[in-house]
Amino acid sequence: MKIGAYGEVMLRLTPPEHLQLEQTHTLRMAYTGTGVNLVGNLAHFEMESYLLTALPDNRLGKAALANLKSLGIQTEYIIQQHQHIGTYFAEMGFGARPTEVTYQNRKSSSFSLSSIETYDVKRFIEQVDMVHICGISLSLTEITAQTAITLAKEAHIAGKIVCFDFNFRPSLNQELGKKEQMKQRYEEILPYCTIVFGSTRDLVELMQWKSEVSVTENETAFIQSFLAHYDITWFAGTKRQVFDHEKFLSGYLMTPTDAFELPKQRLEVLDRIGAGDAYAAGIILGFAEGWSLEETVAFAIANARLAHAIQGDVPLTTRKQVKQLLEHPEADLIR
Amino acid sequence: MKIGAYGEVMLRLTPPEHLQLEQTHTLRMAYTGTGVNLVGNLAHFEMESYLLTALPDNRLGKAALANLKSLGIQTEYIIQQHQHIGTYFAEMGFGARPTEVTYQNRKSSSFSLSSIETYDVKRFIEQVDMVHICGISLSLTEITAQTAITLAKEAHIAGKIVCFDFNFRPSLNQELGKKEQMKQRYEEILPYCTIVFGSTRDLVELMQWKSEVSVTENETAFIQSFLAHYDITWFAGTKRQVFDHEKFLSGYLMTPTDAFELPKQRLEVLDRIGAGDAYAAGIILGFAEGWSLEETVAFAIANARLAHAIQGDVPLTTRKQVKQLLEHPEADLIR
Amino acid sequence: MKIGAYGEVMLRLTPPEHLQLEQTHTLRMAYTGTGVNLVGNLAHFEMESYLLTALPDNRLGKAALANLKSLGIQTEYIIQQHQHIGTYFAEMGFGARPTEVTYQNRKSSSFSLSSIETYDVKRFIEQVDMVHICGISLSLTEITAQTAITLAKEAHIAGKIVCFDFNFRPSLNQELGKKEQMKQRYEEILPYCTIVFGSTRDLVELMQWKSEVSVTENETAFIQSFLAHYDITWFAGTKRQVFDHEKFLSGYLMTPTDAFELPKQRLEVLDRIGAGDAYAAGIILGFAEGWSLEETVAFAIANARLAHAIQGDVPLTTRKQVKQLLEHPEADLIR
Amino acid sequence: MKIGAYGEVMLRLTPPEHLQLEQTHTLRMAYTGTGVNLVGNLAHFEMESYLLTALPDNRLGKAALANLKSLGIQTEYIIQQHQHIGTYFAEMGFGARPTEVTYQNRKSSSFSLSSIETYDVKRFIEQVDMVHICGISLSLTEITAQTAITLAKEAHIAGKIVCFDFNFRPSLNQELGKKEQMKQRYEEILPYCTIVFGSTRDLVELMQWKSEVSVTENETAFIQSFLAHYDITWFAGTKRQVFDHEKFLSGYLMTPTDAFELPKQRLEVLDRIGAGDAYAAGIILGFAEGWSLEETVAFAIANARLAHAIQGDVPLTTRKQVKQLLEHPEADLIR
Amino acid sequence: MKIGAYGEVMLRLTPPEHLQLEQTHTLRMAYTGTGVNLVGNLAHFEMESYLLTALPDNRLGKAALANLKSLGIQTEYIIQQHQHIGTYFAEMGFGARPTEVTYQNRKSSSFSLSSIETYDVKRFIEQVDMVHICGISLSLTEITAQTAITLAKEAHIAGKIVCFDFNFRPSLNQELGKKEQMKQRYEEILPYCTIVFGSTRDLVELMQWKSEVSVTENETAFIQSFLAHYDITWFAGTKRQVFDHEKFLSGYLMTPTDAFELPKQRLEVLDRIGAGDAYAAGIILGFAEGWSLEETVAFAIANARLAHAIQGDVPLTTRKQVKQLLEHPEADLIR
Amino acid sequence: MKIGAYGEVMLRLTPPEHLQLEQTHTLRMAYTGTGVNLVGNLAHFEMESYLLTALPDNRLGKAALANLKSLGIQTEYIIQQHQHIGTYFAEMGFGARPTEVTYQNRKSSSFSLSSIETYDVKRFIEQVDMVHICGISLSLTEITAQTAITLAKEAHIAGKIVCFDFNFRPSLNQELGKKEQMKQRYEEILPYCTIVFGSTRDLVELMQWKSEVSVTENETAFIQSFLAHYDITWFAGTKRQVFDHEKFLSGYLMTPTDAFELPKQRLEVLDRIGAGDAYAAGIILGFAEGWSLEETVAFAIANARLAHAIQGDVPLTTRKQVKQLLEHPEADLIR
Repeated sequence: MKIGAYGEVMLRLTPPEHLQLEQTHTLRMAYTGTGVNLVGNLAHFEMESYLLTALPDNRLGKAALANLKSLGIQTEYIIQQHQHIGTYFAEMGFGARPTEVTYQNRKSSSFSLSSIETYDVKRFIEQVDMVHICGISLSLTEITAQTAITLAKEAHIAGKIVCFDFNFRPSLNQELGKKEQMKQRYEEILPYCTIVFGSTRDLVELMQWKSEVSVTENETAFIQSFLAHYDITWFAGTKRQVFDHEKFLSGYLMTPTDAFELPKQRLEVLDRIGAGDAYAAGIILGFAEGWSLEETVAFAIANARLAHAIQGDVPLTTRKQVKQLLEHPEADLIR
Repeated sequence: MKIGAYGEVMLRLTPPEHLQLEQTHTLRMAYTGTGVNLVGNLAHFEMESYLLTALPDNRLGKAALANLKSLGIQTEYIIQQHQHIGTYFAEMGFGARPTEVTYQNRKSSSFSLSSIETYDVKRFIEQVDMVHICGISLSLTEITAQTAITLAKEAHIAGKIVCFDFNFRPSLNQELGKKEQMKQRYEEILPYCTIVFGSTRDLVELMQWKSEVSVTENETAFIQSFLAHYDITWFAGTKRQVFDHEKFLSGYLMTPTDAFELPKQRLEVLDRIGAGDAYAAGIILGFAEGWSLEETVAFAIANARLAHAIQGDVPLTTRKQVKQLLEHPEADLIR
Repeated sequence: MKIGAYGEVMLRLTPPEHLQLEQTHTLRMAYTGTGVNLVGNLAHFEMESYLLTALPDNRLGKAALANLKSLGIQTEYIIQQHQHIGTYFAEMGFGARPTEVTYQNRKSSSFSLSSIETYDVKRFIEQVDMVHICGISLSLTEITAQTAITLAKEAHIAGKIVCFDFNFRPSLNQELGKKEQMKQRYEEILPYCTIVFGSTRDLVELMQWKSEVSVTENETAFIQSFLAHYDITWFAGTKRQVFDHEKFLSGYLMTPTDAFELPKQRLEVLDRIGAGDAYAAGIILGFAEGWSLEETVAFAIANARLAHAIQGDVPLTTRKQVKQLLEHPEADLIR
Repeated sequence: MKIGAYGEVMLRLTPPEHLQLEQTHTLRMAYTGTGVNLVGNLAHFEMESYLLTALPDNRLGKAALANLKSLGIQTEYIIQQHQHIGTYFAEMGFGARPTEVTYQNRKSSSFSLSSIETYDVKRFIEQVDMVHICGISLSLTEITAQTAITLAKEAHIAGKIVCFDFNFRPSLNQELGKKEQMKQRYEEILPYCTIVFGSTRDLVELMQWKSEVSVTENETAFIQSFLAHYDITWFAGTKRQVFDHEKFLSGYLMTPTDAFELPKQRLEVLDRIGAGDAYAAGIILGFAEGWSLEETVAFAIANARLAHAIQGDVPLTTRKQVKQLLEHPEADLIR
Repeated sequence: MKIGAYGEVMLRLTPPEHLQLEQTHTLRMAYTGTGVNLVGNLAHFEMESYLLTALPDNRLGKAALANLKSLGIQTEYIIQQHQHIGTYFAEMGFGARPTEVTYQNRKSSSFSLSSIETYDVKRFIEQVDMVHICGISLSLTEITAQTAITLAKEAHIAGKIVCFDFNFRPSLNQELGKKEQMKQRYEEILPYCTIVFGSTRDLVELMQWKSEVSVTENETAFIQSFLAHYDITWFAGTKRQVFDHEKFLSGYLMTPTDAFELPKQRLEVLDRIGAGDAYAAGIILGFAEGWSLEETVAFAIANARLAHAIQGDVPLTTRKQVKQLLEHPEADLIR
Repeated sequence: MKIGAYGEVMLRLTPPEHLQLEQTHTLRMAYTGTGVNLVGNLAHFEMESYLLTALPDNRLGKAALANLKSLGIQTEYIIQQHQHIGTYFAEMGFGARPTEVTYQNRKSSSFSLSSIETYDVKRFIEQVDMVHICGISLSLTEITAQTAITLAKEAHIAGKIVCFDFNFRPSLNQELGKKEQMKQRYEEILPYCTIVFGSTRDLVELMQWKSEVSVTENETAFIQSFLAHYDITWFAGTKRQVFDHEKFLSGYLMTPTDAFELPKQRLEVLDRIGAGDAYAAGIILGFAEGWSLEETVAFAIANARLAHAIQGDVPLTTRKQVKQLLEHPEADLIR
């Protein structure tokens, strides 16, 4: 199977060695974004992977393109127009100090300003078997929201599998009435989606979902009623927990009639940004290759654990590395 | 004398060791801008120096503020609002390869969005003896243009010396009718200005200046007619020349009735961005301290030559360093 | 309230990535010292903060000054004379390997050679509401000891609050008779002090304090008898513990009649140097703003935990960061 | 037109800031080689560009592949087998000190061990219009020599244009009888070649070419007799000169009946390795697009001058950059 | 006592800050190898320490030599011939992600190609009291295997103490029949050895040792029967364990009639490569200085724990540091 | 011949990429000093080379020792006592901006405090054939002056060749009467010296030398009268010149009856500190190997030109590199 993602490419700038912005004159630079992370990872799993996005028509756009290519992403549907790239600074936390992200200019980026007509959507949909859309597109600008919804609809009509990641960020949707508007957009896109990444909180707080069974009574049944309603085949997500200062990760995968959750595993974190996309990549791979729920979640969680142990957003894991972790979880040196 | 500049603070990101953007994962970070360069340099000359600007109200704004303070700039009139900082990437050239600058998001920066009411302009004008305004403010947004013009007017009314730098960039003013609009803005601001930095080309091409003597007949008289018209006390600028692959720099300083030009000097260039601001800082220092035209230009050109030999935009030269160059031009090691 | 600290500025040189000195040709450079750490942190809390110190009258002194300004410290009482700055190399430890500090030339530094007459002490005392003195000044040279004692006395006479940090380092006081001399100096300075940072061990070993209640019977009463004797308003400190290879931190704050101790909290350590100064900064902020003992210690310990998670000595924490930790102790990513 | 090159991918390791190997613990890493340089540059000129090579089947091979992709090179004919990559260390010279290159393990690299059967040569030849072969393949191992010759032959038979670069390195061919053997291999491959890069010295010393006109009488006629003999369409090369410590570069391009040489131009050198490949890329582009000899050489020399001003072997120039240099040779800042 | 080791010098290249090879353009460079690690550490313990090895006769060999000297190793028996150095890339793992080592060209290195005649073995044996041989020499090439065996034999005959480290790597010995061949080589060298580093697994799997007491019945007796057979004086090794994601290390030391094992201690790991050599160095120091089994193992394990907390392979610990850890195991800051 | 130098080891700290101290948080670290430079270079020429000096008895001293060993210097006469190392910061100049050196704590360094009794001078003198003393020792402290003079005297008595470098720095000798005192010290040491490095200015200004022929009449005869007086065999030095912004270097070598001066050669400068020591090393090598004046100066100047093109003070040149420059002065790439 081939996959194509629609999503923003961001420039990430990170001070080295856990320094804060005011402590350094040096930054590490990388190109990232939910779509980049996902298809970059799937390309490392040897799935043919495309990105549908817009980059600035300047030297920064050129450099971004070079970096996307190095990840193994097919770049032929990427256009270069406008002048800006969304950017974020990540001051890496440690222990009690959380990582702090500062965004710059997402709303005036090439991606945010590029409407659906400027892309070769038709050929893009023909090219791939699966289309991935990140929910952030629904929050970003009117242009990206309409592009995302139209793309989902057309891909669905063309018989392609649409993957959708809720990725709902309250901090991006604080204006008055924005949350209600977002709910409507999510309701509009969901009927076209086959694989959905989300959480119970998304259903309760954003979608205000009600079912016969309440969420406190039977969380699984509650979610499954949602899946049934929207005809969603796979619904997946992770849970993060902290017990006595140790971190743990678990993952679930549900169908309207089945469900699997992997017991939580201990997490050592070098850089947690992008690790959710590693989980999604694992789930999509399992779907594409027809694995069982159990196999799929085990792979996806191992992949996410590795992603937490890799600098930067993009999970650069290979199948060999994931298998190695599943088969030899204690190994700390390979030679 | 005390000086205050109104101008944008930009984040400059530079790949190390002359690398291009696609060759590196590391950037050097600095905070810069015409106003920063000028008052940063004057603070190094021990003039009390203020900046009137707006920085983002986030961690990047905090880091910017810390960096401005380290330059010795008084920051009490700097406000923090909105979320973005203008940014540029400088791929440093070498030999045949020119330095390439890529701008990001100047028009949506905190500076570009902050109107005059949000600053404490009254107290700022009272605080200083000289106000510096960069012509880029006239090109940037309607808001910055009006702020610049109003500030110049009020400072002039309050009896302060207004310094103005043409700094006209054709590349920022390519829309239809923009150049004519710019001409009008320059005409509006010039009557308030005492010290002006510009070039013959600015007068001919942007201002479309005509005088009894044509520019080709007598360039000095041509400029002086302009100075007389606008009641400009000092008009200064530099000329760059290349002979047989060697670079040279000369500088001039004119009054409506007098003129001095220093013979060209050889230039070795480490980083030319910001070097024009070093020349301006030297001129302003000479004005503030009542030096002759000759003394002033000699100091300003020495300062500019040093600025070409310093990494980054901000000329970090001290009086001691400039004097050292004037007195021992051949010295290459001080211990 | 405004605060001013008398203390040494040191140059800290740190090999990157936990390397040892013989493994690297690169060092990270920062300017530090108890006074710098304290007023740098208080400036980040938006308290007006001054430093009374001497820096070399050379390019290193200039660079130090630029760095102090970037921390938000008011530098107008800093003088530049003599030629040397105290320096230390910090080889960062990891796991079983302790951090190793190597000092260079503290006794011949500008600070160590600058007697009280060379500072504008009168105006400094008028400027501030609180004066902070670090006990290391009492050990360093006769000059710094006399300056510290005189400053404490004059500030006390002028009705200012004097904060004093025992900071007694046995390793700096190993000459014969030095400890007895130190005891006398501490006895001389304490009557002028309102806020004191110290430990039971300081009272027992250095001050050889005896009270009706022995320290083993009732540690709090023992300390309070000391506070009563010297008319100390607040006495504060931290306790470090290690259980089964995990590190923990707790903090206490006492008045002559009251006491509060926060239960120990787990500590993850990136760089512990300077973290004690973060605790002191929190206590001083609580005092200045009239907080309860409980509120003060909670804030100070949260601040100290963050400081352990920041590279370098200077705690660069803001009120927002400390509140974030108090309110969302499990958060590891803010965006 | 589409091009494909057969050539070795090498790992280049360079100490930063002109340091020598014994002075540093840090290296800059890049992937390079004549074929990489050439097709990487042509990809930057927007020609579809392929590489036929072998990389190690390990993590280093993966990293190499990612880097080649980032250059815009099509990697589908690259195989991964064996374990080693040819490597070289470049200690960058300055002034009187020459750059020193130390090679490691070229003869046991994946490339050197991979015979023609292991590549999909048939499909590769079908895919492209031009095939580029570097003469170093003839010196490296028996395997690479036979692969190069067979590939040239089959591409020629298939009607493709074969480009061949003499690139004869005496230092690689010092064994007894090796030079005679090399002459035979060159004689074997030349009949298949349409575009050849070489020098008079190659014809005289390696090929021992004799013609009716001697080389000293008429160098052009001498070379043209060689072109006529082997039915070579274009023969091109550069000449380096040093006059009074200044460096100069000129370039020539000949057909059996025509010739053009551009007057020498001054050269400022940041990194000269790979600059010859930039000249070749310019010539090939001119051939592919049907430019005149004059246009082609002007473009190729401008490209080579830029390549001397870029760190690393791979010329990352774009058409826009080359045009900029041709049209504004004195510009040193673009913004 | 003086020691000399026969072993390969390898170049280690490590991406900084836990980055993977495809994420970085920068590498940290060091010279390493079992012999280097061991005698480098013993030189830090002030034992006179020699290395018998071959380095390339080029600039890389020179740089390697400079680095070995900086470790305090005596280099007079090191020869320079051939052109290559064995190299490995270490992508440092974190948490769930293991460190991955990629070797380059060990079999064609100067060391692998240098036969015993090219060394001044006679004088080397006379110079030292102990000779250390690493089992990897037995796997590498026929040349290094024969050199190792002959050296062991001649040193034994000359009455010197031979130390031998099994260091058996199944991954280096996967060809058909290789394991049986290896067994014979180990059987050939063991009779000359006095101190042996190995594990029960080595005896069972490689040596296929059988004794009256089975290994499961009485592991110590099983090993001691092996020691008795080969007349081995000391047999030592470490055991690594992981309990609930925490790592632990213990160490044992046996004579044919006595045995000591230190209870396991918790391990925090910065870089585990080379830490086994630190244990060996501690054992050899104890032997050389006549310490008891208990003292020796305590020192060796403390040394190994420190080595896990040092970047790079070479344990740079001093006696002072090891003693510090033994006496103040909780100290995390020395000043 | 074997050589031993008495001289200070200094720590040099250099901001990277021509940055000034206030622009960077990173420094490059190296160990240097006239003696280090000289014997480090001679060791690279394969002369057995010793250093007689004192390093701090702490971790910095250990690191210094490791670095000296890596240069090939024999360290057995180096003692470790006291706590400080002389340090300097070098802000590298460019073009019009001179390099600025800031010294720290030279007078309280281990070297400055170590009197002759603490060294094993007797064995040191026996060990070597030549002793090198740097004139800075005469300026530094009374202790180093007396050590230098006594060492020269005893080496002379023992029949060893004493080399002495005037290295007179007016900036280190500005106290009242210091220059007269220095003259006396130079007069005291010169009778023991065979090879002297100095300049006409040293003879005229410091030594106030008068001869029958005045210096303006016949500079060579003037110097030779000085050589004759003190029985100096070889007197050598360099001349730096600047013509029209180009730098040039020439060198001279005189005996009481003969003289040779090499015409000036163009100089490209990466780092000029330490380049004078490279010239001295070349002269000493020529003396030790019995070369003619011409051969010696040619080698020494080539060596000095290379040293100007090497980062850092220590000339790391090999004989091969110097010969390469002499034989192929235009070569800029060796592979």
